[in-house]
Amino acid sequence: MAAFSARALPGIPEIGPGDDLAAILAAALAAEVVSPGSIVTIAHTAVSKAEGALVDLAAVEPSARARALASEQDKDPRLLQVVLDQSAELLRAQRGVLIARTRHGFVCANAGVDVSNAGAPGRAIVLPADPDASARALRAALEVPAPAVVVTDSFGRAWRHGQVDVAIGAAGLLPLDDWRGRTDAEGVELQATWLAVADAVAAAADLARAKDSREPVVVIEGLERFVTAEDGPGAGALLRALDEDLFR
Amino acid sequence: MAAFSARALPGIPEIGPGDDLAAILAAALAAEVVSPGSIVTIAHTAVSKAEGALVDLAAVEPSARARALASEQDKDPRLLQVVLDQSAELLRAQRGVLIARTRHGFVCANAGVDVSNAGAPGRAIVLPADPDASARALRAALEVPAPAVVVTDSFGRAWRHGQVDVAIGAAGLLPLDDWRGRTDAEGVELQATWLAVADAVAAAADLARAKDSREPVVVIEGLERFVTAEDGPGAGALLRALDEDLFR
Repeated sequence: MAAFSARALPGIPEIGPGDDLAAILAAALAAEVVSPGSIVTIAHTAVSKAEGALVDLAAVEPSARARALASEQDKDPRLLQVVLDQSAELLRAQRGVLIARTRHGFVCANAGVDVSNAGAPGRAIVLPADPDASARALRAALEVPAPAVVVTDSFGRAWRHGQVDVAIGAAGLLPLDDWRGRTDAEGVELQATWLAVADAVAAAADLARAKDSREPVVVIEGLERFVTAEDGPGAGALLRALDEDLFR
Repeated sequence: MAAFSARALPGIPEIGPGDDLAAILAAALAAEVVSPGSIVTIAHTAVSKAEGALVDLAAVEPSARARALASEQDKDPRLLQVVLDQSAELLRAQRGVLIARTRHGFVCANAGVDVSNAGAPGRAIVLPADPDASARALRAALEVPAPAVVVTDSFGRAWRHGQVDVAIGAAGLLPLDDWRGRTDAEGVELQATWLAVADAVAAAADLARAKDSREPVVVIEGLERFVTAEDGPGAGALLRALDEDLFR
């Protein structure tokens, strides 16, 4: 019988630029009974803040394109400039909703740029420059045997209301479990055959977090079968290639 | 500290047309220590089979449109006819991938039609006619206090590889937890403010299931805060309105 548990980790303070997130994480984990093969998820906001992935809007000079878009979408032109700076491609801009492909390849609202939870008014928080590298660095700094580390963000969905957390960075976790072409014990081809493990882990972790409690870190135990000794391909493996995108 | 656990329920036999799924589920749950306020998820294939949501392909007469699409996409024209019958709108048909909006409003590959796991060759399994009603009926048949019931399916995503389970039916569960406009204890506006609870629950449940083990039912405990006495709006509440669809 397969089973797992998820719990939010207490004792993580508000993170600021320059904070040693790995040390803070290691200290919080040291106070817990964490089994080998566990998965540690961390909300990207904590990673972004520690890495200084923050933009002071007062220092942003909006381009003509940002000003035109801002006027059209009724948004702050400086914020639009930050969104454009983070974007490889703007997919949709309608009714105040901007959907962009980020420089990393993530398709999400506002290219992952957020003005709430940035720690100070007039400041925007952006995604880490390389969330897979962030996950690998955090993993390397933790005790041996290192748990898997997943960096999460909340993404909206094209055809469904609400947000679910997805993996934007990962180390030591099988991001996808590929059963395509395999059959079960009775020779019947398996139906859900390409499980996005890292995204399901991120979604599960978010349920263990009380929304008003500022608990960026969740520990998941019981999913050792997806934890790997190598850091592996990371969450980048979850990104669909541009030429497979039917909805650009 | 928030925490939850998920475990696959043993003892569920292969389900066939006419089976009393509620009685089978009640018997399997009776053998377990299940706390009040728990959530029971069930893969839609079990629900579809019990409800007879199956199509014998040999009895299908493909239309001219189904034959043209099948030729273009290199598919079985009878299967294409079943997909069209299940669809309100075909959004994309490229390189053998068909993305449709089902009659229920779900946007997914092949309108949720699957020829694998249908229990017999030459048979297609389709989504339940009204998965929220299926969830409500299962819930009503379980012991009081009734757990929440979620009917799940595995959906691909437009811009990400792999599949995650989502809720296509629900009863007794808050499908969305809306914190928009609210602030945390320090007055900072919350970031992930509209959590798609039912979808995160479905994604989490799939992690508790070994892919080759045929375990359609997962029990989740510790998420009582999302379980409601009333059946509530169901998973239909997760569907984005057509006029909000930027990617049709």
